[in-house]
Amino acid sequence: MTISEAERGAMRRALALAATPGVPLGPNPRVGCVLLAPDGTTIAEGFHRGAGTAHAEAAALAEAGEAARGATAVVTLEPCNHTGRTGPCSEALIAAGVRRVVYAQPDANPLAVGGAGRLREAGVEVVGGEMIDAAQAINRAWTFAIARRRPFVTWKFATTLDGRSAAADGTSRWVSSRAARLDTHRLRSLCDTMLVGTHTVEVDDPELTVRDEVDQPLAVQPLRAVMGLRDLAADRRVLNDRADTVHLRTRDPEEALARLHALDRQHVFLEGGPTLAKAFLAAGLVDEVVAYVAPMLLGSGTSAVANLGIQTIADALHLHVTDVTVLQGHDGEDTNVRLTMRPDQRRN
Amino acid sequence: MTISEAERGAMRRALALAATPGVPLGPNPRVGCVLLAPDGTTIAEGFHRGAGTAHAEAAALAEAGEAARGATAVVTLEPCNHTGRTGPCSEALIAAGVRRVVYAQPDANPLAVGGAGRLREAGVEVVGGEMIDAAQAINRAWTFAIARRRPFVTWKFATTLDGRSAAADGTSRWVSSRAARLDTHRLRSLCDTMLVGTHTVEVDDPELTVRDEVDQPLAVQPLRAVMGLRDLAADRRVLNDRADTVHLRTRDPEEALARLHALDRQHVFLEGGPTLAKAFLAAGLVDEVVAYVAPMLLGSGTSAVANLGIQTIADALHLHVTDVTVLQGHDGEDTNVRLTMRPDQRRN
Ligand SMILES: NC(=O)c1ccc[n+]([C@@H]2O[C@H](COP(=O)([O-])OP(=O)(O)OC[C@H]3O[C@@H](n4cnc5c(N)ncnc54)[C@H](OP(=O)(O)O)[C@@H]3O)[C@@H](O)[C@H]2O)c1
Ligand SMILES: NC(=O)c1ccc[n+]([C@@H]2O[C@H](COP(=O)([O-])OP(=O)(O)OC[C@H]3O[C@@H](n4cnc5c(N)ncnc54)[C@H](OP(=O)(O)O)[C@@H]3O)[C@@H](O)[C@H]2O)c1
Repeated sequence: MTISEAERGAMRRALALAATPGVPLGPNPRVGCVLLAPDGTTIAEGFHRGAGTAHAEAAALAEAGEAARGATAVVTLEPCNHTGRTGPCSEALIAAGVRRVVYAQPDANPLAVGGAGRLREAGVEVVGGEMIDAAQAINRAWTFAIARRRPFVTWKFATTLDGRSAAADGTSRWVSSRAARLDTHRLRSLCDTMLVGTHTVEVDDPELTVRDEVDQPLAVQPLRAVMGLRDLAADRRVLNDRADTVHLRTRDPEEALARLHALDRQHVFLEGGPTLAKAFLAAGLVDEVVAYVAPMLLGSGTSAVANLGIQTIADALHLHVTDVTVLQGHDGEDTNVRLTMRPDQRRN
Repeated sequence: MTISEAERGAMRRALALAATPGVPLGPNPRVGCVLLAPDGTTIAEGFHRGAGTAHAEAAALAEAGEAARGATAVVTLEPCNHTGRTGPCSEALIAAGVRRVVYAQPDANPLAVGGAGRLREAGVEVVGGEMIDAAQAINRAWTFAIARRRPFVTWKFATTLDGRSAAADGTSRWVSSRAARLDTHRLRSLCDTMLVGTHTVEVDDPELTVRDEVDQPLAVQPLRAVMGLRDLAADRRVLNDRADTVHLRTRDPEEALARLHALDRQHVFLEGGPTLAKAFLAAGLVDEVVAYVAPMLLGSGTSAVANLGIQTIADALHLHVTDVTVLQGHDGEDTNVRLTMRPDQRRN
């Protein structure tokens, strides 16, 4: 079935609505919806504002009222068929008299699936898959977590140009510049979980909160997760009341991710130390890498990446560069390289 | 003394002429010249086409003929005062009846200096220093070599994202992509000397020529220099007749550069191996660094930079990033980072 120019334009608008900045991340996907009259003019718009609030379709239907009868709903995700905190969107669209639904990404959530089928059953015309790539990109971690049944893992590290994270005597201050530290906080805010090992908590005592440019903690904080068998001393800052914290008493990355998945976590920001990073890399459980490369040479010191047991160049871990930027600061220019792990080097 | 809008425009044009691509590099600077009539219109243009050919001023004067009388010469470098393979430009300008000279960069070459003084003596109006930065950038290595009395040194290395140049078993094939190798040949062609250590010649037997995209050697080749005390086997490719070769029988970087300076070399492209790179870095004799960072992680293997004896982070070598690009190839995307050494970490 083909779709009209008006519907295509409405999908672009719905994608922009879905990506509205400032929506608090929760376990739900970002969704946008535009209702079109039979002549192609826009009747109403809606987007999902986070867990516990109306779905995008419901928001648009509420705005449209009676005008929804005979309309076309253009929506970035297949309407759900699931009674959660709100009723199923498929039923709401049918009840409102919507005649046709155009959606981008199929809903792979096993609890919500079946919306398209239910709509067709009720005589609504349904077209799926339009601009699916753009829709999936908006919900990258959500889509990944549903398909793979584990969170997406972004591993971040800071290094000199020659691959060192600290000098021979252990000093490492300013291996990442202020601009890199600010950028790290921005990336933390886009994840729902930050993960470190017990040893980093013991040695560095990080608070692991997301702070803004003037060093104030944001209102919504990701979950703080600490992995490893040993107990955490009660005075550690990671246990303060600024955010929630979970202690994953395991050394198995797969088990840790399974536990986080059970907690509805979709995007883990792995911040070290080297032991934990190595465990995730060796297990094929790193999906994305963010490297901050400082314009420095050391020639010795701690390697940024611990020994992975790779013997020969053919076994190197291969990545794809997705983005390279220079972060400019008064204390130097860090090169920020973002990469994704090659699919054959990732594990489910 | 101020300069006119027409003169400023002529200087921009002279800079473009000086930078004309395809001019064979030699020991001479790149220079452009524009002759303006008193009403500001252009009479003639010229640029230097390499050692043994007319200087930019002479080329423009020849084109102008009698029209040069009363004209203004706008030139990117102070006119020379030196009889080399061609006569001094100062005298040629005076003889042609030029009334005024505007130049950008002063000529620091001890043999050629004094042109501005000679012109003033003869009653010509002289203004210097206009757009000096742009002029110096065109002749970066030439300017550097004259001021510091040694060649400018660009050190190139290839590394994984975690600072390794080879795997644990010594394999390193494809640590640089095809795009990076092509880019290396482009950079070689911009230098006048390529430098490696005797051990690299022994182990890798590189030809050290500059080849184009279809792997054909260019007509003009930089000098090949090999540094170290041991003899080179007569069958080494670096000794073939594709280009000139010099064996610098020393382990002292300062002495090696002095020898190359005596050979009129202005820009050395240092290609390794690690031993030689370390010697130059430790001596403060690296001015620019070109790093090709492959999207790979190894976790072990040969470090891209050998131990420099740096103990603590405060002693790290600091650089400034001047350019970051992604080199796209069918075999991956290398990140190319270009940096200059911080001035306080360079030696004369
Ligand atoms: N440059 C950076 O970006 C960065 C980032 C973070 C930390 N660091 C530095 O890294 C240092 C800490 O390094 P680290 O590697 O020891 O810290 P880590 O990775 O945070 O913690 C290591 C600990 O995690 C536990 N663990 C969990 N899973 C494991 C597994 N699969 N295998 C082994 N152990 C596992 C073990 O403790 P249990 O005995 O409790 O099981 C282990 O001792 C600190 O000095 C810190 O400053 C640097
Ligand atoms: N990844 C890359 O970009 C790259 C580039 C080039 C080479 N390589 C690899 O590097 C390996 C060779 O490494 P290398 O470091 O031994 O080679 P090298 O730096 O090319 O040569 C080292 C030799 O240079 C001489 N030398 C000159 N100045 C010296 C000084 N100041 N201190 C000590 N020695 C000095 C010494 O030989 P004498 O006894 O003759 O004095 C020394 O053995 C090869 O396997 C090659 O494949 C890699």
